[in-house]
Amino acid sequence: MAKYIGCDLGGTNIKGAIVDSEKGIVYGVRSIPTLAHEGHKAVIDRIAAFFKSMIADSGFDASEILGAGIGLPGAIDSRTGVSVFMTNLPDHWIKVPVADMVREKTGIPTFLLNDVNAITWGELRVGAGRGCDSAVCFALGTGIGGGVVINGDLVLGRTGVAGELGHMIVEPHGNRCNCGGYGCLETYASGPAIRSAAIKAIAHGGTTILGGLVDYDLNKIEAKVVTEAALKGDQIAIDIYRNAGYYLGIAASNMIMALEPERVIITGGVAAAGNLLLDPIRKTVQERVHVTPLDGITIVPGELGDNAGVIGNSMWAEKCLAEQKAPDFNTK
Amino acid sequence: MAKYIGCDLGGTNIKGAIVDSEKGIVYGVRSIPTLAHEGHKAVIDRIAAFFKSMIADSGFDASEILGAGIGLPGAIDSRTGVSVFMTNLPDHWIKVPVADMVREKTGIPTFLLNDVNAITWGELRVGAGRGCDSAVCFALGTGIGGGVVINGDLVLGRTGVAGELGHMIVEPHGNRCNCGGYGCLETYASGPAIRSAAIKAIAHGGTTILGGLVDYDLNKIEAKVVTEAALKGDQIAIDIYRNAGYYLGIAASNMIMALEPERVIITGGVAAAGNLLLDPIRKTVQERVHVTPLDGITIVPGELGDNAGVIGNSMWAEKCLAEQKAPDFNTK
Repeated sequence: MAKYIGCDLGGTNIKGAIVDSEKGIVYGVRSIPTLAHEGHKAVIDRIAAFFKSMIADSGFDASEILGAGIGLPGAIDSRTGVSVFMTNLPDHWIKVPVADMVREKTGIPTFLLNDVNAITWGELRVGAGRGCDSAVCFALGTGIGGGVVINGDLVLGRTGVAGELGHMIVEPHGNRCNCGGYGCLETYASGPAIRSAAIKAIAHGGTTILGGLVDYDLNKIEAKVVTEAALKGDQIAIDIYRNAGYYLGIAASNMIMALEPERVIITGGVAAAGNLLLDPIRKTVQERVHVTPLDGITIVPGELGDNAGVIGNSMWAEKCLAEQKAPDFNTK
Repeated sequence: MAKYIGCDLGGTNIKGAIVDSEKGIVYGVRSIPTLAHEGHKAVIDRIAAFFKSMIADSGFDASEILGAGIGLPGAIDSRTGVSVFMTNLPDHWIKVPVADMVREKTGIPTFLLNDVNAITWGELRVGAGRGCDSAVCFALGTGIGGGVVINGDLVLGRTGVAGELGHMIVEPHGNRCNCGGYGCLETYASGPAIRSAAIKAIAHGGTTILGGLVDYDLNKIEAKVVTEAALKGDQIAIDIYRNAGYYLGIAASNMIMALEPERVIITGGVAAAGNLLLDPIRKTVQERVHVTPLDGITIVPGELGDNAGVIGNSMWAEKCLAEQKAPDFNTK
C-alpha cells in the first residue's frame, strides 16, 4: 500500500519510478526528455502527464499512490514546495510553486527536494547510509553537490540550500571556481577537474597512456578514461585521482571534526573510480583528523547508483506525509 | 520553580550558579579552585559539596533545584553522562561516570556536556543565537572550540565530540598544530596564535608599538595587548587580527555552505577584539561564499561572556529532563 512516485528533474531528462517503500521495490525506472527550453510551465505539464502515464502503465490504482517527491537541480524551499533558482535551466524557475502545480494537475501530494539532498536521503534510507543517524554525502559529477544528515534528518538550511559541499574551500589560494570563489573542492574533484588535469598532463608531455587511449582526441578525455588508464597502472592517471582524493579528504576531515557523523558517502559519476579515489580520501582523513575518534566512522561508496535520486525523492514524500512537515501545501 | 544548577569545570576553577530558566535569572555566579591534581574522585566530591553549599547559601529549598548540568573540558558522552577523555586534566578522567557520581552524592539529576557545546547552547537559548533554529559557534581562547545547532538541537556527534571547529583545516600546507595536524584554524586564530604573531612581528623589527606596550617583556604579550595596539591604530596589530579573521572567515564560509545556519557566533577571550576580528570575518565570508544567500545569515559576537557556559549547562539540564534524553542515568 505504501507506494510513492520518485522523480528526478535534470536539465536533459526527467527520470521517475513508482517505489514501494515497505517492500523496497522500485518499479521500472523510466525517463522522458525535459525539453527545458519550453519553460517551466510546459515542463511541469510534462511531469504531471509523466506521473499519470507511469501510474496507468503500472496497473496500480491511482489511489494507491500516496505522494510524490521531485528532485530539482538547484535551490528550492522544501518547506513550501517552491523552487528558488535553477542555475542550469533556461528560465531558472524563480519562485515557481512546483509542488502545488503538480498536485493540482495530478491530485497527488507533492514535495520538493534539491537533487543532491535527494541522493543523500536515498542513500541514508536504503543505501550506503542505512541504519545511520548521521552522514555526510559527496556527489561527484559535473559539479559537486552534497547532503548532510544529523539526528536522522536532512539538514535543509535556512532557505533550503544547505549541502553545498562542492564549494567548501579546501585551498584558500587555489583554483578559480565557476561560483566566483577560489579553491573550492569542485575545482579539484569534479568530472571537469579530473578531465582538465588529464588534458594538462597530456599537453605537458607527461609519460602517460591517457592520450593514446583517446587517439589524441582530447575532447574524448573524461573521468572514465582516466580510470581506465589508472587501472592499467598509469602513474599520472593514478596521481590525478590521488590529488582529487586528497582534497576530498580535506573536506571530509573538516566535516568529520565539525559534525562527527557515522558515515561519509562518496557517490556520483567520478566515484566510479572506486578505490583509486576512496583510498586517498581515507588516507588523508587518517593523516589529518586527530581530535575525533575515527574507528567508528566509515568512508564508503554510494550503493544506489543512478537511481539514488529517484528512490530518495520517493522516500522524502513518504517522510513529509508521515510528519506532515509541509502544511503549507499539504492541507490545501 | 524551574531552577537548575549550571556548572563549568575548568582546569583551574569550577564555576557554578543557580539559574532560573523561566525568569532568566542567574543567581550569583561563584567559583572554587578545581585542584585537578587531586584526581577525578576528589574533584567530583568538591563539585557535589559545591552544589550543596550553593543551594544552602541561596535560601532555596533543595527540592526546588530540578537538575544540574556540568560542562567538562574534553570529550564526553552526554547520552550516558560519562567522561571520555580530558586532555588538560592530570588524570584525564577516562570513562568516569561523572553524572551518576554527582547524582549519588547530591540527589540531583545531573547531565554532562562538552564545555564549548555548553557555551553554544547558552548563546542559542538566551544569548546571541536566541530565536534561531540553527547556528554555528566559534569559541576562541587558548584553543578554539565550537558548537553546531541544527533544527534547534545541539549536534553532539557519534561519540559526543562534534564541534571541533578549531581543527578544521583552513590552510592544507599551513602551520603545525598541537593536535598533530597542519593548518588547523586554531593555529591562526587562538589566543596563542595571536600572541605568537605579535612576538614574531616584534622580533622581526616591525614598526609597531606592541613591544613598547609591554616594556619589551615579551612574556606579557597576549591578545589583549594586541587589541590595545590595534585600537591605537598600530597597523601590525590590525593585520594580526585581519589574518586571524581571514582564516575564521574561511572556516565560517565552509560551515555556511555546508549547513546554511541562521547565525555564526564568535565568542571567547580573543573575540573581545570586537570588530577588529569580526570585520575581516564578514569580509572574507562575503568574498568567498557565492552559492548560499548571505542576506539572512548574521555573524555576531557572543552575548553571555564568561557566564555562557554556566548558563548553557543549566539549560542543558532543563532540556534533558524535559526530553528525558538520557534514560541511562536518569531513571536509575
